Amino acid sequence: MVVTIIGIGLIGGSLALSLKESGLAHLIIGVDQSLDNQKQAVALGLVDEIEADLATAVGRADLVVVAVPMDAMLSVLPQVLDATTERQVVIDVGSTKATLLAHVDSHPNRARFVAVHPMAGTEYSGPSAAVPGLFRDKTLVICDAARSAEDAVARVEAVFGRLAMHLVYMDATAHDLHTAYISHISHITSFALALTVLEKEKEEQQIFALASGGFESTVRLAKSSPDMWVPIFRQNRVNVLDVLDEHIHQLQHLRELLNKEDYSAVYQQIQQANLIKKILK
Amino acid sequence: MVVTIIGIGLIGGSLALSLKESGLAHLIIGVDQSLDNQKQAVALGLVDEIEADLATAVGRADLVVVAVPMDAMLSVLPQVLDATTERQVVIDVGSTKATLLAHVDSHPNRARFVAVHPMAGTEYSGPSAAVPGLFRDKTLVICDAARSAEDAVARVEAVFGRLAMHLVYMDATAHDLHTAYISHISHITSFALALTVLEKEKEEQQIFALASGGFESTVRLAKSSPDMWVPIFRQNRVNVLDVLDEHIHQLQHLRELLNKEDYSAVYQQIQQANLIKKILK
Repeated sequence: MVVTIIGIGLIGGSLALSLKESGLAHLIIGVDQSLDNQKQAVALGLVDEIEADLATAVGRADLVVVAVPMDAMLSVLPQVLDATTERQVVIDVGSTKATLLAHVDSHPNRARFVAVHPMAGTEYSGPSAAVPGLFRDKTLVICDAARSAEDAVARVEAVFGRLAMHLVYMDATAHDLHTAYISHISHITSFALALTVLEKEKEEQQIFALASGGFESTVRLAKSSPDMWVPIFRQNRVNVLDVLDEHIHQLQHLRELLNKEDYSAVYQQIQQANLIKKILK
Repeated sequence: MVVTIIGIGLIGGSLALSLKESGLAHLIIGVDQSLDNQKQAVALGLVDEIEADLATAVGRADLVVVAVPMDAMLSVLPQVLDATTERQVVIDVGSTKATLLAHVDSHPNRARFVAVHPMAGTEYSGPSAAVPGLFRDKTLVICDAARSAEDAVARVEAVFGRLAMHLVYMDATAHDLHTAYISHISHITSFALALTVLEKEKEEQQIFALASGGFESTVRLAKSSPDMWVPIFRQNRVNVLDVLDEHIHQLQHLRELLNKEDYSAVYQQIQQANLIKKILK
């Protein structure tokens, strides 16, 4: 299979590695507007070649993966679909779906496009952030599968099944709601935590000395790129605001209980929070 | 060296393992008020024997480690010091210091006590949570060292130096301030995040399916025990409220920017949060 990957960053690059390692792809063509990313992607062996012309890169592929930030996605995906034929399958790997899917809903080649979201990543970005095995045992959300051709969905299922991903089906609206609740809010809290610590703790040396594993794990997402996250927050703004309001409310409640020294209520709140153990390992 | 460990949980148990592995301790005596913990500690090989009488357990030891929750610490540490002689050294491993140190300030054996805080841990608790190598390359804060006898401080430095910990010196007030900013707030945000997700996301199956590594890392501290954390928040209440107010302010600011769709300001805030990269690896 020939695969064209548009946007060779953390996700595009990691997918390239997995597709090569699994034997699914014998040729990977990379497209990236950044000359620096192009060079890195080749040097790191993520792609076999770089193609400057988008339509040419799409035309040569069996599978086209669009892995650009969500704002660029809105312009790149229609261009890719313009160049797509009946024998090809196009996927995005974006973190928000409703805006994007509405945007390409009436495209004549809509049926060749399958919207997927691999629930995997790290706080790093760019070609050098690509890691092998990123998708193994993770969830792949396939959105609005009924809007795609059956053969296209089947091919996507076969590819990601081979990468040992667990397939979950959801409509775009549900996807955006659940990812706001479970993924996007984690990034907001982590950004806010980093800002808090940087504001309160002026002595960098103290942060360095006292940062334990707990601090590092809650704050690590704060290293994430604004180029990726601002478009996500923009496209999923209503859901993100909704969960953010709840989060601020929960913090204010804990603050109030601590302020009035109602420690048995604080204890109960922590016990309630502990219930997350039942769901996560 | 004979070591008595009072409270054989995550920290006490892990310290037992490290002291044995390093060859520093040839006999470890355990004290724990929970019969279940006693049995587990012996079965897991964390301690060589259990001693029911506190004064006897202290009397036999060269080094006494008090590793109980911070509320129990206020009653246990004075009892331990009552039984301490000139040849012995007592340490606590607690997460807050000002209240505790004021509490034992006038004890006749105060000089035999060295207050330390290893910046290491996990979200689990009890003897089964003990892990080898927990302290390696982590920071040990030694508080108000001038209030301890020189030979006692030297022995503590030798022991934790051998465990490959980085030693940092701080007064109790500074310790409580910095740990609120860097450690305690992370736990508050994680508890609040778990409460938020449990409130908004009624479909547990969705949390399970969509939880990525990012969510798991920000929420993992929410599994932490209220028995440990309520006393910490209680004893460090003023500092915790201070940093919590700043955190709520940061979240409200992000919310406001997102609400009025000022995406360039959101972008700048994330760039600012990214500065945490400079400090953490």
